[in-house]
Amino acid sequence: MQVTVIGAGNMGRGIGHRLVAGGHDVTVVDRDAEEAGQLAEELRAAAQGGATVEAAGPGTELRGEVVILAVYYPGSLELARELGDSLAGKVVVDISNPLNQTFDGLSTPPGTSAAEEVAAIAPAGTRVVKAFNTTFSGTLVEGQVAGQPLDVLIAGNDEEAKETVAQLVRDGGLRAIDVGSLERARHLEGLGFLGMMVQQPLGLNFQSAWKLIS
Amino acid sequence: MQVTVIGAGNMGRGIGHRLVAGGHDVTVVDRDAEEAGQLAEELRAAAQGGATVEAAGPGTELRGEVVILAVYYPGSLELARELGDSLAGKVVVDISNPLNQTFDGLSTPPGTSAAEEVAAIAPAGTRVVKAFNTTFSGTLVEGQVAGQPLDVLIAGNDEEAKETVAQLVRDGGLRAIDVGSLERARHLEGLGFLGMMVQQPLGLNFQSAWKLIS
Repeated sequence: MQVTVIGAGNMGRGIGHRLVAGGHDVTVVDRDAEEAGQLAEELRAAAQGGATVEAAGPGTELRGEVVILAVYYPGSLELARELGDSLAGKVVVDISNPLNQTFDGLSTPPGTSAAEEVAAIAPAGTRVVKAFNTTFSGTLVEGQVAGQPLDVLIAGNDEEAKETVAQLVRDGGLRAIDVGSLERARHLEGLGFLGMMVQQPLGLNFQSAWKLIS
Repeated sequence: MQVTVIGAGNMGRGIGHRLVAGGHDVTVVDRDAEEAGQLAEELRAAAQGGATVEAAGPGTELRGEVVILAVYYPGSLELARELGDSLAGKVVVDISNPLNQTFDGLSTPPGTSAAEEVAAIAPAGTRVVKAFNTTFSGTLVEGQVAGQPLDVLIAGNDEEAKETVAQLVRDGGLRAIDVGSLERARHLEGLGFLGMMVQQPLGLNFQSAWKLIS
């Protein structure tokens, strides 16, 4: 599959590693051409199954069905606005955790979520999927924590779009768990928030992951 | 420690097992005297470290510092109203997941939680703690899932009260994780809800648990 990852930061790096581990072709887009190029080079070196990786600047045509907004909130909203009609028909993955400015709460008002806000901004026909907001970047690079594959929790209103994301997740060696409609992104963002809040008290240094064990 | 568990149902049973495993004295209170008696007998047989267990009916004086409301929402609210002033000064543990009538969403409005509602009803000086809402009854009886000790996520505004609950959790062989203020019960209830929603699709039969692995 061809996937566009917008944002060459930590999360773009983590998700990118899982994508190329699964043999998928990745285009890394970043305003900073050097960062995009560096990440593309790193991912190319890690690529398996003939996966290709290229770097591109903003304004490039979005290649492939899946676009991952690997940026901080509210950058994800600005991006959705900027990209506008080019998102129509795409599977757009929102990974953000909308922390407030004091990093001790969510900045989205109760009764909505960053993912729902992205969906409200994106053009009709955009299939927004929430995913990867409860998995930290370093653990995505590794693909596991303490020998256990990461769980990637997925919410969205389009079943086919969720299955597309789930396939990417599984191909990267992780477990995909569909938690239901896009509205449930509220709870995923709550969980992502709690995960961040306990890092310092528990001394976890973002090397932890929420997992549904059974 | 002396703990009163109100509700001799599944969750009262699960939590009761952890309490007596930790050597704590338990009073089981239920409107149904037979159920209370049966659970008390079961817990007595499982008790360790000299823990005592007795059964009592409603209206009994609340013994000990900790009262666990092991009932369904909104029964927890009714209970807080009924118990009224007898809760003042107590550590009151709300374990509920406020599911709506169609079991596909939360019945609490956005911007609050069952735990905060209990706190609003309880008299001044009641120290409400959210805990045990992301751990299913059967897994509490066992104390683990897949060989891993359960995580019990705890939220509350009174540090001492949270530490009291955390101590009970640890004594029962589980891991306590303090996620912060009582307001964060909203996210714990969101997580509890998601956990319930994936049971049937994933065929887990409530033998799973959310865990922060690291």
